[in-house]
Amino acid sequence: MLNEFLVEEHVKNALKEDIGFQDISTEALIDDKIVSASFNTRTDGVVCGLSVVKKVFEILSKDAKMTFKKQDGDNIEKGDILATVTASQKCVLTGERTALNYIRYMSGIATETAKYIKAMNNPNVRLTDTRKTIPGFRMFEKYAVRTGGGIPHRYNLSDCIMIKDNHIQCAGSVTNAIELAKKYNSHAHKIEIECENENQIVEALNCGVDIIMLDNMPIDDMKKAIKLINKKAIVEVSGNVTIDTIASIAAINPDVISTSAIHSGVKPLDIGLDM
Amino acid sequence: MLNEFLVEEHVKNALKEDIGFQDISTEALIDDKIVSASFNTRTDGVVCGLSVVKKVFEILSKDAKMTFKKQDGDNIEKGDILATVTASQKCVLTGERTALNYIRYMSGIATETAKYIKAMNNPNVRLTDTRKTIPGFRMFEKYAVRTGGGIPHRYNLSDCIMIKDNHIQCAGSVTNAIELAKKYNSHAHKIEIECENENQIVEALNCGVDIIMLDNMPIDDMKKAIKLINKKAIVEVSGNVTIDTIASIAAINPDVISTSAIHSGVKPLDIGLDM
Amino acid sequence: MLNEFLVEEHVKNALKEDIGFQDISTEALIDDKIVSASFNTRTDGVVCGLSVVKKVFEILSKDAKMTFKKQDGDNIEKGDILATVTASQKCVLTGERTALNYIRYMSGIATETAKYIKAMNNPNVRLTDTRKTIPGFRMFEKYAVRTGGGIPHRYNLSDCIMIKDNHIQCAGSVTNAIELAKKYNSHAHKIEIECENENQIVEALNCGVDIIMLDNMPIDDMKKAIKLINKKAIVEVSGNVTIDTIASIAAINPDVISTSAIHSGVKPLDIGLDM
Amino acid sequence: MLNEFLVEEHVKNALKEDIGFQDISTEALIDDKIVSASFNTRTDGVVCGLSVVKKVFEILSKDAKMTFKKQDGDNIEKGDILATVTASQKCVLTGERTALNYIRYMSGIATETAKYIKAMNNPNVRLTDTRKTIPGFRMFEKYAVRTGGGIPHRYNLSDCIMIKDNHIQCAGSVTNAIELAKKYNSHAHKIEIECENENQIVEALNCGVDIIMLDNMPIDDMKKAIKLINKKAIVEVSGNVTIDTIASIAAINPDVISTSAIHSGVKPLDIGLDM
Amino acid sequence: MLNEFLVEEHVKNALKEDIGFQDISTEALIDDKIVSASFNTRTDGVVCGLSVVKKVFEILSKDAKMTFKKQDGDNIEKGDILATVTASQKCVLTGERTALNYIRYMSGIATETAKYIKAMNNPNVRLTDTRKTIPGFRMFEKYAVRTGGGIPHRYNLSDCIMIKDNHIQCAGSVTNAIELAKKYNSHAHKIEIECENENQIVEALNCGVDIIMLDNMPIDDMKKAIKLINKKAIVEVSGNVTIDTIASIAAINPDVISTSAIHSGVKPLDIGLDM
Amino acid sequence: MLNEFLVEEHVKNALKEDIGFQDISTEALIDDKIVSASFNTRTDGVVCGLSVVKKVFEILSKDAKMTFKKQDGDNIEKGDILATVTASQKCVLTGERTALNYIRYMSGIATETAKYIKAMNNPNVRLTDTRKTIPGFRMFEKYAVRTGGGIPHRYNLSDCIMIKDNHIQCAGSVTNAIELAKKYNSHAHKIEIECENENQIVEALNCGVDIIMLDNMPIDDMKKAIKLINKKAIVEVSGNVTIDTIASIAAINPDVISTSAIHSGVKPLDIGLDM
Repeated sequence: MLNEFLVEEHVKNALKEDIGFQDISTEALIDDKIVSASFNTRTDGVVCGLSVVKKVFEILSKDAKMTFKKQDGDNIEKGDILATVTASQKCVLTGERTALNYIRYMSGIATETAKYIKAMNNPNVRLTDTRKTIPGFRMFEKYAVRTGGGIPHRYNLSDCIMIKDNHIQCAGSVTNAIELAKKYNSHAHKIEIECENENQIVEALNCGVDIIMLDNMPIDDMKKAIKLINKKAIVEVSGNVTIDTIASIAAINPDVISTSAIHSGVKPLDIGLDM
Repeated sequence: MLNEFLVEEHVKNALKEDIGFQDISTEALIDDKIVSASFNTRTDGVVCGLSVVKKVFEILSKDAKMTFKKQDGDNIEKGDILATVTASQKCVLTGERTALNYIRYMSGIATETAKYIKAMNNPNVRLTDTRKTIPGFRMFEKYAVRTGGGIPHRYNLSDCIMIKDNHIQCAGSVTNAIELAKKYNSHAHKIEIECENENQIVEALNCGVDIIMLDNMPIDDMKKAIKLINKKAIVEVSGNVTIDTIASIAAINPDVISTSAIHSGVKPLDIGLDM
Repeated sequence: MLNEFLVEEHVKNALKEDIGFQDISTEALIDDKIVSASFNTRTDGVVCGLSVVKKVFEILSKDAKMTFKKQDGDNIEKGDILATVTASQKCVLTGERTALNYIRYMSGIATETAKYIKAMNNPNVRLTDTRKTIPGFRMFEKYAVRTGGGIPHRYNLSDCIMIKDNHIQCAGSVTNAIELAKKYNSHAHKIEIECENENQIVEALNCGVDIIMLDNMPIDDMKKAIKLINKKAIVEVSGNVTIDTIASIAAINPDVISTSAIHSGVKPLDIGLDM
Repeated sequence: MLNEFLVEEHVKNALKEDIGFQDISTEALIDDKIVSASFNTRTDGVVCGLSVVKKVFEILSKDAKMTFKKQDGDNIEKGDILATVTASQKCVLTGERTALNYIRYMSGIATETAKYIKAMNNPNVRLTDTRKTIPGFRMFEKYAVRTGGGIPHRYNLSDCIMIKDNHIQCAGSVTNAIELAKKYNSHAHKIEIECENENQIVEALNCGVDIIMLDNMPIDDMKKAIKLINKKAIVEVSGNVTIDTIASIAAINPDVISTSAIHSGVKPLDIGLDM
Repeated sequence: MLNEFLVEEHVKNALKEDIGFQDISTEALIDDKIVSASFNTRTDGVVCGLSVVKKVFEILSKDAKMTFKKQDGDNIEKGDILATVTASQKCVLTGERTALNYIRYMSGIATETAKYIKAMNNPNVRLTDTRKTIPGFRMFEKYAVRTGGGIPHRYNLSDCIMIKDNHIQCAGSVTNAIELAKKYNSHAHKIEIECENENQIVEALNCGVDIIMLDNMPIDDMKKAIKLINKKAIVEVSGNVTIDTIASIAAINPDVISTSAIHSGVKPLDIGLDM
Repeated sequence: MLNEFLVEEHVKNALKEDIGFQDISTEALIDDKIVSASFNTRTDGVVCGLSVVKKVFEILSKDAKMTFKKQDGDNIEKGDILATVTASQKCVLTGERTALNYIRYMSGIATETAKYIKAMNNPNVRLTDTRKTIPGFRMFEKYAVRTGGGIPHRYNLSDCIMIKDNHIQCAGSVTNAIELAKKYNSHAHKIEIECENENQIVEALNCGVDIIMLDNMPIDDMKKAIKLINKKAIVEVSGNVTIDTIASIAAINPDVISTSAIHSGVKPLDIGLDM
């Protein structure tokens, strides 16, 4: 779940961004009558971001009330009512765009993630995301991936060691790199290493690495690598993951498939607010 | 141009988000050697965000230097070097993902905007964006649209009056709505009104409205409306704008076409950083 | 109306400024008894800032209650009670000065604006403000001008193009300047230009400028200019606007008179808080 | 002196307030040519805020250079050049209004303070300010009062105990109030008490109070009070202090005269920026 | 008392620090059942920080309720229940460590202060703290010292003049230093001077200094100094204050003993949270 | 290493806390002469925080220069010069206390950590810290532990799953808890579980847990547990760790000993600044 006080801070900044000094159209034209307005989806998908939407209206007006017809993660169909907000017409119109921006982007990611999971068609494989997120929006992207059925990867550079080619080169060898990483870092953090060939894999396994990442490798090479690793480390594969290729990648049974395709540049879900 | 001090604040937050306490991989494995690394594009497009990328490395290290091979707005081709950063290897690796997240998203939007302008094939028509932006990222989306050849619409709810169906309904009539909007608002702000039929257009023109927005209207109806308006107000059309439909919409010569398709959910451009 | 969440942020900073660590007098001497205290005016004027005052006490104590006897914009007379706060004596005394600072400055501006409007004695002319505001306090100055019967000018540099002599000089001519401004800027933003002579006015009108500003011009010249403009653009006049001159300026029927005299360096209204 | 890092934070917020997203006029029309522009005064006074003005341009452009012709506190005469900024024309025009807002308000206060000191015509009496400041702007008001020759009073509620009628009433007596204040508070903080009659003064002196404030008292009563106090406490007088009355108040030789007249609602000094 | 809105801001930052994106253990394992949990002390002492603890849970959940069995400043004994929180199990577990960090550190300081006061065994002497606080945590250290029976010294560099050897040297003499300090500073602020010998004391007294600080002086010298000062200034002594020496220092009857021993590097009190 | 931009933000807040509006003593008495001042240690230990100290003076004055005689982590002896700052006397005196507060606390923790490591006398055992940190100061505590030779534990609740008794109880069993934790969480995060008996250990090992924590267990029981675990999981022990007991705990060869004793309530190292 999203932490309410972190959401509140983010939404306040978003409202400042969208309102500026004042919603000059609404102030000029709209009275304070209490109205009800419904969030409806114009397309099928997975809904995500309802608590964020609620926060938008609560910040604008202490009296705003929201009732949820759906919960985050629910499958929704074209025409479904997702939630209803009851508040002054001013509050509803001033918050409308910001609320929609959150729920549409978040639901878009949740929906895309769910599509990939369905396409993957292998319950033994996990689908995870990347750090290729919009600067300032990661909390919501990670949450939406989870809502859609994925399991987020590390949140940031602090919480899992990831050894890539530059690190190996600088350390001198896979073994050196892993030893240095272990020595410097907390026993509470895993070590993941990106391996490009069998030699590196063998070396990494000998060092007791936690996760081996196979990036942009031909499927057959990945298959061999997975056999070689033989459950001695978690296998994460990435690269060229599309809705069309994911089933064949999942078929070789890696532990984890990671891809930005489920959250990066995903089209927002077409959700509207009707009075 | 982006204001440097606003960019700096945004990038600091993005680095906090991506670094957390510390880049534990780089700290463990990477020395302070000065290296050069180049931003390369793996695909054609329009580059955008170079000054933001520079700021990322400058925040991490006062000694980081960046040289630009391209300028924002330049057409770039697969394989082009866009810029080179010279800094400690630690600085480069720690800032890499954040820098790429900015430049890839921004260049994606600039590229998409340029594609739509090319498809539009009508220099007399302006292409503009919407408020359907990622919460907290609008400044960069607006800038990228401009970089790609579009002209941003209003920035937020403060800087142009936009009268929609709810406002008209609440005010009682188009005339009432425009009169109220004029009375309340600064003479320095334009009034735009969304019209759904000829009666509304006539009424709006009689009130001296600045911009008439035709939303989701069949092309033939838009044509008639444009003829009716006859340059007495700026005509903005929107709805169903895709890369395939934009030429036919532009062919009826509205003043402005607005669409979120050029910035919302656009795939980031494939740019990488090579040491 | 002021946005409550923006007011809350501003007031918190103001309370930090005025309290520092602690109100050491009140903490030492005052018990938690619930008291009522009234905001009274010691002079006639227009009240402004009641919702801000309410926020001051609510931030200091969730249990503070405020009842309004007047509304923002009401004419008030010496001796009138404006509002009553019921809260712990500590809360009242600690918040008193900050609350008064807001309501006194804001009511001062509202009152001054109302005086100018009365002196102007021409309902067809609008009175508007300037960007000559106290850094960090603009939101409240703009709101107070509106409360006093004025209509604020643009809020900031983002929401209306204003072309002055430097811009014209840099662009080469009035025509060039307006063309550049149009080309760069959103169709949603107006263009205002400061004209110094009839040639410039004619050129500006030919370019379809929205607003012509006549600054520091002799009255007769302004009269001629207004005749020349002949409703083809909005006419804004400024310069040498005082309570004594405004009637004669308004008499030549410009659309708008802008002046910092109504908000800049205005004496606060003498309002006190009595227990 | 003002702390540079505190000024920087304040100015950044002021620039955000005045710029919004972007200075759309300057971006459209102005090139990056380096220019020099001078701050000139159109009236006599005391200049204040030069380092703040410098910070405005430095935030907008790292390359901005400023040279000072005058120092804060200097007497200036109509036509004097105060400082020259050399920077890109964009930087100068975008920062102009914010820079002027600071220097004009601050110089206005410094000038008014100097006028009062001159009118006071008694070097043995101190002139001091109040907490009746614009919310968020106190640092600059206090600094400007000092620049004009005044000595600021306490900064906020944390740094001097001030006992007023409500405190006395709540404590039961002057003696009780002072005892409670001493008991609760640091030995490092002074106690000031507002006395309304001779009995209170005697009681306060017996308790060893540091400062006695006489507020809104007839001159003759103040004279007697000062005689009674007889240097056993610092005497601060306030109330009805105007440019016309201050000499007669100063003539009775209180230690300190405090008044908001020197900083609250003071007209900004007419300073301009000429290219 | 602590100002609630300042506490709220501090606690939000502390929760961000401790939670990062999410409490991944609690989110995975804990349901939303409402539970009660008690803060118990495993050792004797003085409790401090109850309102801060309450704020921790209120920020995490609007529905959290807290009942206090003890008040700040109460003596507590091993096994005592201090307070009970009733909230969702998630809320309790996620906030537990942050809540304990506040209450344990604050109670540790309050307890240490109380011990020193007991050891001092002289009700005529005040015990006060220093500016040797953890950066960012001063408000809580000062409050805890007060809770334990001490009276905080000045809060920061703004609220009492403290003249040390460097200042004297720079000014040329004790007299010069005090004169300069008086001239520059508000009449509302006291002047404290650190004196190293009798000459300095005499000079300082002649200038009417408010407080004389004797730092790191042998007891006999302090005794003589106190006699010399003879109540003409407040005497503050510091240096080598330990739980073992404080009684003998207090026995010479200075007005104030200041020491960081009561708050700096003090062990937190062993308080736990039991479900 | 500490991230410079995060340090800068923290130090600015610390300076605001310690300065308030202004250092009124230094402003009154100290000229702008450039001086050199040295950080000296009055006791033996391990130095930590030099880059933070540098930042303090750089924020106060762009011209401040610092030269380091020692590096973070160096053993220092009474009388050693650690660093020299060259800056205006004002800058040095205003920043002194804040600079010392950082370096003294951080060096205190580094020194204590080093003492424990020496006492532990077993290079095969890691010493690690806890989340029992001062709210808002964790980054510096973690860094100081590392500087003293420890390896920090997880930074916050986001980066390692820690299953305690409440979690087990809520999940129903050790197995359920670990399964739920795995299912919910990223493959990039380790799972640590606190076990109270051999049954729990066996169950946890069967689930492939990463780390087993033995808390407050008698030494003999820990010995048996370590034997039972037999390198199939990392063993972390905690509870009753003191400078006297740590050698005997380390002698049973756990992988990790965790304790707040090395950072919580540690006395600051006696470092001074001499001009």
